[in-house]
Amino acid sequence: MTVKAERQGEISRGTHGDEYVIPDGEAAESLFRELMEAASAARSAGREVVVVQGLGFVGAAMAAVLANAGPSDEEAPFFVIGVDRSTSDSYWKIGMINAGESPIRSEDPRLAKYIRRGALDRKTLVATADERVYGLADVVVVDLPLNAAATESGPPGMVDVDMATFLGGVRAVGRHMRAETLVLIETTVPPGTTEKVALPALRDELRERGIRDEPLVAHSYERVMPGIRYVDSIERFWRTFAGAGPEAAGRARAFLEAFIDTEAFPLRELPSPRASELAKVLENSYRAMNIAFIQEWTRAAEGMGVDLHEVIESIAVRRGTHDNIRRPGFGVGGYCLTKDGFLAQWGVRELLGADVSLDFTLQALDVNYRMPGHSLERLRSAIGDLDGKTVLVAGVSYLADVADFRNSPSATFCDLLTEAGATPLAHDPYLDEWPERPDVEVVSDLREGTERADAVVFAVGHREYLELEVETLARPGLVVLDAQNIIGDERAAALRERGVEVIGVGKGHWGGAPGENGR
Amino acid sequence: MTVKAERQGEISRGTHGDEYVIPDGEAAESLFRELMEAASAARSAGREVVVVQGLGFVGAAMAAVLANAGPSDEEAPFFVIGVDRSTSDSYWKIGMINAGESPIRSEDPRLAKYIRRGALDRKTLVATADERVYGLADVVVVDLPLNAAATESGPPGMVDVDMATFLGGVRAVGRHMRAETLVLIETTVPPGTTEKVALPALRDELRERGIRDEPLVAHSYERVMPGIRYVDSIERFWRTFAGAGPEAAGRARAFLEAFIDTEAFPLRELPSPRASELAKVLENSYRAMNIAFIQEWTRAAEGMGVDLHEVIESIAVRRGTHDNIRRPGFGVGGYCLTKDGFLAQWGVRELLGADVSLDFTLQALDVNYRMPGHSLERLRSAIGDLDGKTVLVAGVSYLADVADFRNSPSATFCDLLTEAGATPLAHDPYLDEWPERPDVEVVSDLREGTERADAVVFAVGHREYLELEVETLARPGLVVLDAQNIIGDERAAALRERGVEVIGVGKGHWGGAPGENGR
Repeated sequence: MTVKAERQGEISRGTHGDEYVIPDGEAAESLFRELMEAASAARSAGREVVVVQGLGFVGAAMAAVLANAGPSDEEAPFFVIGVDRSTSDSYWKIGMINAGESPIRSEDPRLAKYIRRGALDRKTLVATADERVYGLADVVVVDLPLNAAATESGPPGMVDVDMATFLGGVRAVGRHMRAETLVLIETTVPPGTTEKVALPALRDELRERGIRDEPLVAHSYERVMPGIRYVDSIERFWRTFAGAGPEAAGRARAFLEAFIDTEAFPLRELPSPRASELAKVLENSYRAMNIAFIQEWTRAAEGMGVDLHEVIESIAVRRGTHDNIRRPGFGVGGYCLTKDGFLAQWGVRELLGADVSLDFTLQALDVNYRMPGHSLERLRSAIGDLDGKTVLVAGVSYLADVADFRNSPSATFCDLLTEAGATPLAHDPYLDEWPERPDVEVVSDLREGTERADAVVFAVGHREYLELEVETLARPGLVVLDAQNIIGDERAAALRERGVEVIGVGKGHWGGAPGENGR
Repeated sequence: MTVKAERQGEISRGTHGDEYVIPDGEAAESLFRELMEAASAARSAGREVVVVQGLGFVGAAMAAVLANAGPSDEEAPFFVIGVDRSTSDSYWKIGMINAGESPIRSEDPRLAKYIRRGALDRKTLVATADERVYGLADVVVVDLPLNAAATESGPPGMVDVDMATFLGGVRAVGRHMRAETLVLIETTVPPGTTEKVALPALRDELRERGIRDEPLVAHSYERVMPGIRYVDSIERFWRTFAGAGPEAAGRARAFLEAFIDTEAFPLRELPSPRASELAKVLENSYRAMNIAFIQEWTRAAEGMGVDLHEVIESIAVRRGTHDNIRRPGFGVGGYCLTKDGFLAQWGVRELLGADVSLDFTLQALDVNYRMPGHSLERLRSAIGDLDGKTVLVAGVSYLADVADFRNSPSATFCDLLTEAGATPLAHDPYLDEWPERPDVEVVSDLREGTERADAVVFAVGHREYLELEVETLARPGLVVLDAQNIIGDERAAALRERGVEVIGVGKGHWGGAPGENGR
């Protein structure tokens, strides 16, 4: 479906190639008047007006869920306005939502269905770039990005945090919100941000406008997971929240109860936003730490000729104490596990003044970032000099069977291949083109890619790879590096009979020590 | 029950004060002849002769379980001979077992019952210091100690391992065993020990005696846990094993199936002893790592005024991914978690030649070892200079509701108190005297101890402490440090009203930052 650019204005292109005109001047004014009327009508019909700020992986899904809350169309509790920027990079999300289409490609069919129903059937969902809509809101949900990384140079443990987008967004809310609006921060933030950054900024903006009321602010982090349970990960999953003060906490609880199945997943209230903020970054750091821990045992197992996967299976039978132990792998990607430890360190020290070094947490991020380098070393130990070689990277998303390519370790791996003089090819059942690595050729057929390659690296455990026929890889002289325990001893043996060299991350019994182990 | 010293010989004193004569000369010969006859009779009755080497926390329990295996007294599959040393430090264990008494004080009544039934009723259990009994064995189970520690000086990651006791024991087996005897190593050993240390030593000893057969050796680590499930942790729990070769593996499987409920807990066979050895040290390192990881977040939470216990409860609802997350605490004790990472590093590098540094693993041991120092800093931040103060340490065992005092972090804490000029008092419902710290006075009544102290530190979550009346601690001016989340907000408030200062590990909302956070 193409929405024609009928009015004058800049164009923003959506994921399906559709073009959306970014409204300005009179067009924008007219759209805002329509929105005010719709909000007013919704409020008369007993609905709360919720503005979701930021229509990315979390915000778009949140808006969809909120617009579909309630037992029936008639009893929909919310009229939802999604806000994103009016730039050509971002406006297409607004255009798609208003056209009833999901700006996020997901394996969960409910996401598209929710957006269609909200925007076109219920008419409980609209999107805009006009920040004046914060003035219409009973609740503003903040789903802005907030990035962090290790400081390029400087002492270890120093972190750069980019607060600008987040703070700018919060200030925009403050410029328009009413005194009684609840601002619910869902963004994963450095601990202390709600109390030390957002609250003072909102207070300032209200006072600018002569409003002396204390703003109502709460923090409740999302646990949105891409994949088949995208919507469920909001509606039917655990939620922690905390208000800055009892009124905000009470408002946040009532709001969350309106769209989360809190009978099955009772809300967990913490006494302060900093506790809720800490919970989120700890939760993700715990996972990141456990991945990094297994990475050092991966190197040990490889060095001593042991299959670590098998060893870990024998340990994970201990339920309640050891079943969360992680498996060897290719790397860590996505938006959370790669950065939340940095947010933690920065917030604890810079916002809350605690002189504590989160050493393990930060080291784990570093180890995980280097994981693709270990696979490269394994590959080099099998293939020799990589210069001039062609390597097919099978799997680009950061999770199996998911079309989410944020911070993909395959991107890091391709960079390392290029540095080493090799030519990377990429394959992924969910990838047609790879905007983050435009120089890497994407092949649509695994077998075709294999025929052009000196080596194939399995980087993601997609179903297609798990079900792979031996025939697809059976080319004498090919090197196969299995970084996700996909191939199994039986297929590996069959491949070796066909002249394929098979090695595996964590699989020391497939060829032993990789020398310096990539560190 | 006192066994009188009727014969001449050295004396060894048991845990109940009983005295046992260490037999020598003709007495020892006569005992050995009796043993040979009993073993021979048992074998005629269709029983396998199993010799358990080492009657410590694992070996004594293993001997008890083996002697009680089978559906009935008549169908007992094993005649069990426990072996320990003939020194006055060790012989009492032999004496006690032969008298039908458990050398280990346990909360599990089945342990004492099993030893009584095996030694006195079934007559399937005897103990001796005579190493010639290895020659009677169908199976020898090795449960010797094998200690390790960080090298005092030298580069990080270097480890001292004391192989002497273990290797001496294995050689003793080799001097007497028959070619067809299965040697099953249960000791937690550096990876590679079975193949690179035990097997060559046994081979040497056999060849010394002109036996060219390859010894049958397997590794299967125990998961014995002190406490109410002591016996169950052997009979009804998961078991991993591996043989050095298929015959040893088959023999080990048959042996383990005879006393473990393998229907409920199917055996996990790994392809090599080094894999089984790796599994054990990884399993314990995983726990140690997760404790150390939480320790750094404990300091963060304290520094920012957050109750980390509450935060972690809100995270641990995520079953399957986050429910194994650990809680803040006082320290790590016991025999396994304090050393197995060292064994891992040493075996991987020295025995198996893999040039891999287990950085996280070794750092975790260090952090955990320093945990009591953090509690000391918390205490100092509340009480000021510790010089001349009296501090009651409530809890000495390394686990709640267990009479096991090995490597107790309370011992480390008392040492630190003494260094700081304070006088430690110790209380533990399971402790009458404290042989490891003879200079520390043990008080039998918590209230009495409290009355003599400037501060009370709850170091172990014993039931007695959980059920504590506020009255017991309600002395104005007293400082209470709760290192195990025992007291709770309500009792803490009640105590504060009574003039008691209450602080807690991981409980930043009880008083905030301890300055330099003890590191």
